[in-house]
Amino acid sequence: MEDSVNTDILVGIIMGSDSDLDIMSQAAKTLDEFGVANEVHIISAHRTPDVMSDYGATAKERGLKLIIAGAGGSAHLPGMTASHTPIPVIAVPIKRENHGHEAFWSNIKMPPGIALATMPENGAKNAALLAIEILALNDESLAAKYDEFRKNQSQAVYDIDDELQTKGWQKYLEEK
Amino acid sequence: MEDSVNTDILVGIIMGSDSDLDIMSQAAKTLDEFGVANEVHIISAHRTPDVMSDYGATAKERGLKLIIAGAGGSAHLPGMTASHTPIPVIAVPIKRENHGHEAFWSNIKMPPGIALATMPENGAKNAALLAIEILALNDESLAAKYDEFRKNQSQAVYDIDDELQTKGWQKYLEEK
Amino acid sequence: MEDSVNTDILVGIIMGSDSDLDIMSQAAKTLDEFGVANEVHIISAHRTPDVMSDYGATAKERGLKLIIAGAGGSAHLPGMTASHTPIPVIAVPIKRENHGHEAFWSNIKMPPGIALATMPENGAKNAALLAIEILALNDESLAAKYDEFRKNQSQAVYDIDDELQTKGWQKYLEEK
Amino acid sequence: MEDSVNTDILVGIIMGSDSDLDIMSQAAKTLDEFGVANEVHIISAHRTPDVMSDYGATAKERGLKLIIAGAGGSAHLPGMTASHTPIPVIAVPIKRENHGHEAFWSNIKMPPGIALATMPENGAKNAALLAIEILALNDESLAAKYDEFRKNQSQAVYDIDDELQTKGWQKYLEEK
Amino acid sequence: MEDSVNTDILVGIIMGSDSDLDIMSQAAKTLDEFGVANEVHIISAHRTPDVMSDYGATAKERGLKLIIAGAGGSAHLPGMTASHTPIPVIAVPIKRENHGHEAFWSNIKMPPGIALATMPENGAKNAALLAIEILALNDESLAAKYDEFRKNQSQAVYDIDDELQTKGWQKYLEEK
Amino acid sequence: MEDSVNTDILVGIIMGSDSDLDIMSQAAKTLDEFGVANEVHIISAHRTPDVMSDYGATAKERGLKLIIAGAGGSAHLPGMTASHTPIPVIAVPIKRENHGHEAFWSNIKMPPGIALATMPENGAKNAALLAIEILALNDESLAAKYDEFRKNQSQAVYDIDDELQTKGWQKYLEEK
Amino acid sequence: MEDSVNTDILVGIIMGSDSDLDIMSQAAKTLDEFGVANEVHIISAHRTPDVMSDYGATAKERGLKLIIAGAGGSAHLPGMTASHTPIPVIAVPIKRENHGHEAFWSNIKMPPGIALATMPENGAKNAALLAIEILALNDESLAAKYDEFRKNQSQAVYDIDDELQTKGWQKYLEEK
Amino acid sequence: MEDSVNTDILVGIIMGSDSDLDIMSQAAKTLDEFGVANEVHIISAHRTPDVMSDYGATAKERGLKLIIAGAGGSAHLPGMTASHTPIPVIAVPIKRENHGHEAFWSNIKMPPGIALATMPENGAKNAALLAIEILALNDESLAAKYDEFRKNQSQAVYDIDDELQTKGWQKYLEEK
Repeated sequence: MEDSVNTDILVGIIMGSDSDLDIMSQAAKTLDEFGVANEVHIISAHRTPDVMSDYGATAKERGLKLIIAGAGGSAHLPGMTASHTPIPVIAVPIKRENHGHEAFWSNIKMPPGIALATMPENGAKNAALLAIEILALNDESLAAKYDEFRKNQSQAVYDIDDELQTKGWQKYLEEK
Repeated sequence: MEDSVNTDILVGIIMGSDSDLDIMSQAAKTLDEFGVANEVHIISAHRTPDVMSDYGATAKERGLKLIIAGAGGSAHLPGMTASHTPIPVIAVPIKRENHGHEAFWSNIKMPPGIALATMPENGAKNAALLAIEILALNDESLAAKYDEFRKNQSQAVYDIDDELQTKGWQKYLEEK
Repeated sequence: MEDSVNTDILVGIIMGSDSDLDIMSQAAKTLDEFGVANEVHIISAHRTPDVMSDYGATAKERGLKLIIAGAGGSAHLPGMTASHTPIPVIAVPIKRENHGHEAFWSNIKMPPGIALATMPENGAKNAALLAIEILALNDESLAAKYDEFRKNQSQAVYDIDDELQTKGWQKYLEEK
Repeated sequence: MEDSVNTDILVGIIMGSDSDLDIMSQAAKTLDEFGVANEVHIISAHRTPDVMSDYGATAKERGLKLIIAGAGGSAHLPGMTASHTPIPVIAVPIKRENHGHEAFWSNIKMPPGIALATMPENGAKNAALLAIEILALNDESLAAKYDEFRKNQSQAVYDIDDELQTKGWQKYLEEK
Repeated sequence: MEDSVNTDILVGIIMGSDSDLDIMSQAAKTLDEFGVANEVHIISAHRTPDVMSDYGATAKERGLKLIIAGAGGSAHLPGMTASHTPIPVIAVPIKRENHGHEAFWSNIKMPPGIALATMPENGAKNAALLAIEILALNDESLAAKYDEFRKNQSQAVYDIDDELQTKGWQKYLEEK
Repeated sequence: MEDSVNTDILVGIIMGSDSDLDIMSQAAKTLDEFGVANEVHIISAHRTPDVMSDYGATAKERGLKLIIAGAGGSAHLPGMTASHTPIPVIAVPIKRENHGHEAFWSNIKMPPGIALATMPENGAKNAALLAIEILALNDESLAAKYDEFRKNQSQAVYDIDDELQTKGWQKYLEEK
Repeated sequence: MEDSVNTDILVGIIMGSDSDLDIMSQAAKTLDEFGVANEVHIISAHRTPDVMSDYGATAKERGLKLIIAGAGGSAHLPGMTASHTPIPVIAVPIKRENHGHEAFWSNIKMPPGIALATMPENGAKNAALLAIEILALNDESLAAKYDEFRKNQSQAVYDIDDELQTKGWQKYLEEK
Repeated sequence: MEDSVNTDILVGIIMGSDSDLDIMSQAAKTLDEFGVANEVHIISAHRTPDVMSDYGATAKERGLKLIIAGAGGSAHLPGMTASHTPIPVIAVPIKRENHGHEAFWSNIKMPPGIALATMPENGAKNAALLAIEILALNDESLAAKYDEFRKNQSQAVYDIDDELQTKGWQKYLEEK
């Protein structure tokens, strides 16, 4: 992972398996849209525990401000990474069809003393938005972009309702 | 709430009822220990919805960096507050004896677009620690205090194990 | 939403997203069949919180007698709307394939003081029927239509059983 | 039950056992406070099914506008009563210590065609408030009382927060 | 239902909707295979409550020994039928894809005083087998058939294992 | 267990541990009240599996008509006993404070081919009533006693409601 | 089962039905890859209880060191087999689409006194790995193979991450 | 932990906090009774992650044959320890009053590749018994002790049933 020592990278996105990449890449995509430099790595808490420890332990000195960690099943990656670093770690529990909420429970029951910010199941986009909110506390330009995002998001709802009022719900449903 | 317009206050701690205060005050206590100025308010999403909207909408301009919101039952307070503000909101689901996980589910299922950092049930202390991790990203002195806290926390475990080895578990249990 | 100020409209049907419209439109359809004027709007508790507050706060003066609110996920829309209006609010938790019961828990755990009438998951038709039962308390013509509906509903079961007795279950199943 | 044919009584409160009376009497108490005449009966869906059928079937002609039905365990009373009457039935699932959510599931999964307005577990007070909201649709005096109730409820939260600001949370907690 | 007054019929199979017939007909099929005369009816607890009461109340005098009742959702049919008859009632909770266990909870939590024999979800075949075990207590010929059934059932497992030993699991799986 | 070969005994009541006896003895007590001879044994599926097999395999020849089996935790006793006998087995899942529904799930998911009649958690009384309903199918005297029991049970509810009407709920609650 | 008395066979793999073979054969496949001789049998706790008792009771004398038992539904096979043998039994709960966690609960709640090592749902591969870890305690050659396996497993994660860094996540996802 | 390098010690018992010692010491007590040397340590996955990694990584060379790991809440200790060692790890999920099954889910959902033998919640005694079963595979003297233990355990059930038959259940319950 030597090539990831990049002082511009603010957010590390890690996940236990490349089968999680379809979901976790939504965090990278959202950060990219806001211009927040990030790196994406596959790190398994159980199969490569020493890489995980190392990633957490060196995160701050490598310039990372936040880590977004996604994992399914026993999902030890987010909490164990948090144990190795003082920077905020955001957990994304991965839940596939026919799964229960196990990844979720594993993330959300951290003991007092080690904080972990848990997102909705598969909530990689919201993980990125929380990262942006945090970084925006000290970045006015990013804060402005985020305000714009929130406004557009509201406007999209107004537009949909306008279209619904114009067409009536029967026609709206048919054309959807 | 006019007296809360205090530019020094960085974290707002709100909760739906004073019956939540025994738990939520642990966040205030932890922030106090780290020297992070905070305010504590009772705001009900359902009984005082306009106060809640207003609190969220003015939080940033009043200088708040983060809001920690605790609520039980339907627990709409954290998510609705997040809808009104661009600063990070940390949710603490309140769970009492004989409760199910309802507060938790209400917090954790926010839709894509509005982020909420959910803590363990009754995890007010961890909410404060996450707030500290976030504020420490731009406050070296706070970061140093937090490193110290983490070191002491580890040391406490070493000390307990040392005592256990010295005494043996039988005697340790008897004297506990 | 200025065009929705229609004194004839008795029931407002609102939902958090147009992805809920396939389910929620069943309420509109049922009300239409009984001749009860209604309006349908997309209002997001989290993305357009001020529209929601406003919709609730003005509902009574605009002549609405009841609001039917559907939402999935954290599902804050029904309870928050109820917080803003004195007229009855009927909640329809939206549950899609692979969802848990989160929308449901968020609706059903309202605190003492703010009532919300929760329907089955995706129970938009029953929401409309409850609205009709309520409006029929002061509308003899509507009450008569509702009695007729209930009688027909019973008769449909008798007819099915008659057909089953005539054909035998083997043939009934084959032809189904 | 001949003595219950009372034309002034608008709301019938029924429950499966007198062990439910401590909870269900909160509905009666709330209705009494708003001056809404009501009757309270013990009717068991399983032990006195014919009384239940009869109660439902005659409710409207006896002048009842609404029925509030509470039951625990299998909790068939509310849904079965609804099957026998065209007036709105409000269900209160009773949940005791060490119970699961069975009463709740039994109430909330009514099939399309028979509506039931389900309240929170043990939510007898909210059942009464919903009844009041419904009756207030055609009773201006009751509507005014209900507005007053809602205002007072909000004020109580403001007062608590004021006290908290004055005292600080440490002192507030000690004196509680 | 006049044509069902048949003194030879020992088991009544009822269900809330013809959508349950694919599952519940497995009970009829099993009973037929054992030569136990049975009748199959669609009776809805909520849409035809009086038919249900009547069916239960007259079951014994019509010569029925047992009732097998299947229902999904709120699933009040089995328990309410049991309330109207002294003969044993066997409940089959119907569970479809994406359903929770609601039908089950509604069946299994009958109060002390009214017994209901609950089967596995969709366990119509086992319901028939229990009926056969009960009827066989006083029918030696049926008891002998049932012993034969159980022996054949064991033998089928022996045969499968023999085939598996002969082929090896790789080939067995390929040919399956 | 040689002394239990008693031709008069119709019902065997077995349980996994004497810690279940407080609950399971309610079945014996109810059967005693109806004059149905029964025996009570402690048999552990896991600690005395051969006794269990033997008890099931010899039950019919020893004259037993039914077995009521109660167990907590993994609760294999009822289903395994059913595997060894052709007579009906009634399962009583034992659930103590702080337990989940494990005993229940273990009982209720028997595979097609081996029937088990599952009762409510701790439903030993209903297990006895089901046994009585089954035995009464061929015992007119027992059937008459059971009818009387059901009538008295209904009357008890009428009496309670009468007392409630006379006293009013306030006084009724105070004196309870 | 006479042909299974093979002194070389160390692990017995049993399951309740050949419908479990697709999952349970993964245990056989993994053991084969490590050169651990094993046998595979279909044994039903409920349909062939005596075969099960016998299999457990003779396992040790036949030279087996471990039994891996898989079952779905009520899943009594693993725990009951453990009751008949002093060698370790590893349970694999089988969970199919639309199943709940019943097999799991039935395995995991064994009473104090009879141990059962429960694996993840459908975790037949891990069952084999645990068996290998146990056998490797006294087999240096097997221990060396297992170390190699673990190293390769780690290396596979490094390789995936290397590929991801080289390609970038967009290209990696497209080509997957 | 230098004093724990003891070649005689075969089983390491570790737990996340001394609040788990009352439960986990039951494993030590059981091992002591069978004469199996063991060590007991407090090691926190989250507060002392490096100690945990080290403990796992050196376990085999220090002569340990097995590790029993207990933890509550997020309960990462057992699975993470397993990730660092090739010897078997037995997990004991700790569950206190008012807890959910979180510790359990965190233990039981390990990914394919890293095995973990999960015990019942609070099942420290069974963890020790499984350890004994494993060690007894190569220790005839221990195997003999374990057979004796199992026989005594069965005898205890026979004795209780004998006492119950002699006294009758009424007297047995009174004297208990």
